[in-house]
Amino acid sequence: MRVTGKNLSTVFVIFLAVRPACGRVGEDLLDRAGRIFKPLAADMPSPANPITPEKIRLGKALFYERRISLDGTVSCWKCHPISLYGADGLRTAIGNGCKVNPRNSPTIFNAAGQIAQHWVGNRRDVEDQARQSVTGPGSFNMPGYQSVEKALEGIPGYVNLFRKAFPDAARPVTIENFAKAIGAFERTLVTPSAFDAYLKGDRTALGDAEKRGLAAFLDTGCAGCHAGAYVGGGSYQKFGVIAPYWKYTKSEPVDVGRFDVTKQESDRYVFKVPPLRNVDRTAPYFHDGSVSRLEEAVWIMAKVQLGKDPEVRSVRDIHSFLESLTGKIPDDALKVPVLPGRE
Amino acid sequence: MRVTGKNLSTVFVIFLAVRPACGRVGEDLLDRAGRIFKPLAADMPSPANPITPEKIRLGKALFYERRISLDGTVSCWKCHPISLYGADGLRTAIGNGCKVNPRNSPTIFNAAGQIAQHWVGNRRDVEDQARQSVTGPGSFNMPGYQSVEKALEGIPGYVNLFRKAFPDAARPVTIENFAKAIGAFERTLVTPSAFDAYLKGDRTALGDAEKRGLAAFLDTGCAGCHAGAYVGGGSYQKFGVIAPYWKYTKSEPVDVGRFDVTKQESDRYVFKVPPLRNVDRTAPYFHDGSVSRLEEAVWIMAKVQLGKDPEVRSVRDIHSFLESLTGKIPDDALKVPVLPGRE
Repeated sequence: MRVTGKNLSTVFVIFLAVRPACGRVGEDLLDRAGRIFKPLAADMPSPANPITPEKIRLGKALFYERRISLDGTVSCWKCHPISLYGADGLRTAIGNGCKVNPRNSPTIFNAAGQIAQHWVGNRRDVEDQARQSVTGPGSFNMPGYQSVEKALEGIPGYVNLFRKAFPDAARPVTIENFAKAIGAFERTLVTPSAFDAYLKGDRTALGDAEKRGLAAFLDTGCAGCHAGAYVGGGSYQKFGVIAPYWKYTKSEPVDVGRFDVTKQESDRYVFKVPPLRNVDRTAPYFHDGSVSRLEEAVWIMAKVQLGKDPEVRSVRDIHSFLESLTGKIPDDALKVPVLPGRE
Repeated sequence: MRVTGKNLSTVFVIFLAVRPACGRVGEDLLDRAGRIFKPLAADMPSPANPITPEKIRLGKALFYERRISLDGTVSCWKCHPISLYGADGLRTAIGNGCKVNPRNSPTIFNAAGQIAQHWVGNRRDVEDQARQSVTGPGSFNMPGYQSVEKALEGIPGYVNLFRKAFPDAARPVTIENFAKAIGAFERTLVTPSAFDAYLKGDRTALGDAEKRGLAAFLDTGCAGCHAGAYVGGGSYQKFGVIAPYWKYTKSEPVDVGRFDVTKQESDRYVFKVPPLRNVDRTAPYFHDGSVSRLEEAVWIMAKVQLGKDPEVRSVRDIHSFLESLTGKIPDDALKVPVLPGRE
């Protein structure tokens, strides 16, 4: 049966109570997906930090810059290597002086459009994340913002790049402008994939397994949280709605999540819903990287969030769908900047 | 006076004893330089490891690969970031688990053509360096070559890349082929500069200060060791011919150099003569990174190797000449490879 505009609402009313998770019965999969997801835009703009070529150029150099870390080995790249889709492949990040961080490095791709940064939303946006990381003990561990500004002012090429990126600033080399430049670069890091082509109307962009997986993803209820352009990243949710997450992830220690930030009891075990763009390339999974295989992560999510026990075949199809979210890294982001010298 | 072919040998005989370090008096600076240096070739081939596009492709991926290090943070890039001209900017390298290495990371650019690798020549060639680094405690610190092979075999994309690079191998994923692939990539890393254009006959490629610096470099005697295509890298020499090096570099502890390798008394304080290509961009200087400014390094070399005390102006000119050795990183080396995923 094919639903037309005419009979759609009748059908909807009749069947909604019976199969609420399955969308409008007989509704075209693409139409159904179109109500829930959005293709990626060309970039992720911010009124507070307009993207300019000069900021991107500076920001990309700063992204690779390790001479602003206490031990001289940490740059943004360390935890967000572009060669590995912007995540480091570790359970939890390792920063300056080999300090182990409490949570898994989220990828920087498609990050700037999310509700907030990091797993518990303790970084407002990508600019805030860049700014705070330079003094974070588990990141760059610099003694203060002034020490970063001084280090950058000591490299003449950077003074020029800052001047070009912030032509109206009386003093261009500031931590605020550092954060804005990196933010502007990160706001360009979108990775359109086969799924975007599909959402834009190309029904051949997904194969059969991917389409079955998309349907299973929707039917299982995953899109209740993993929706929008980033297939997540737009809300906070308790991890372990049905059962404690750590019984399945074997997490040790148990992380209380956003409670750390707000001290609200309602935020206990609450985390930002991670976006699923490039999820196939950014193992291991969850806030503590406790699970290394994607299909196990999918099954755990169905179990502890939705109280479901999906069949192996269904999980495999969902995996296929998730692979269709692996996108193309922008050419410019794949060009290594040559950093300015000290003399 | 301008020396022509006709009167050259007479002039040479008369003046050689008087100013032996200065070359043939009145000899054209370019001719003089041409007898000592060579322009860089297109690559640095090895009969034992022919360079192929497939090996380069694999080798570049492996160069960025950190999933073959014990703590998951070390790739070749860590100590040889291409964004910083292939050296890490640290006094001495920091490897797996933050282990501090005894010596400064040499740049990988123009390295493959040198007499040996590392400061004391304890790595035969770039292939040997790549192979030994994966088990070196201060580098990747993997428990053995087998563990590296196993890790790579666990990433299906690599199995394909190895097969393409070594089509005749019964078992392509071996540590030997790992080393060959990285070696093939590194054998392409040449950085031709203004100095090469000059050596090839373009007299306008160097400015006045650079030419004065080249003349001072030759007159001072630097080219006694720093010669050839790499302006060094072709021989071993005692560091501190005239005076102990550590009195000037303030090195602590004192490094006995190649004596560590050969246990020959004649190798005490002997190091590979570092190549000076891109030296302006690869601070800090010397085997222990003890000196951070290039002009200080130049002055120390004149003092402890040649017993000279060059004027500030002369050191500055030599600095200008050394800047002309800063070359262009090959476009392909400036493209980040996207590494294969695990699943």
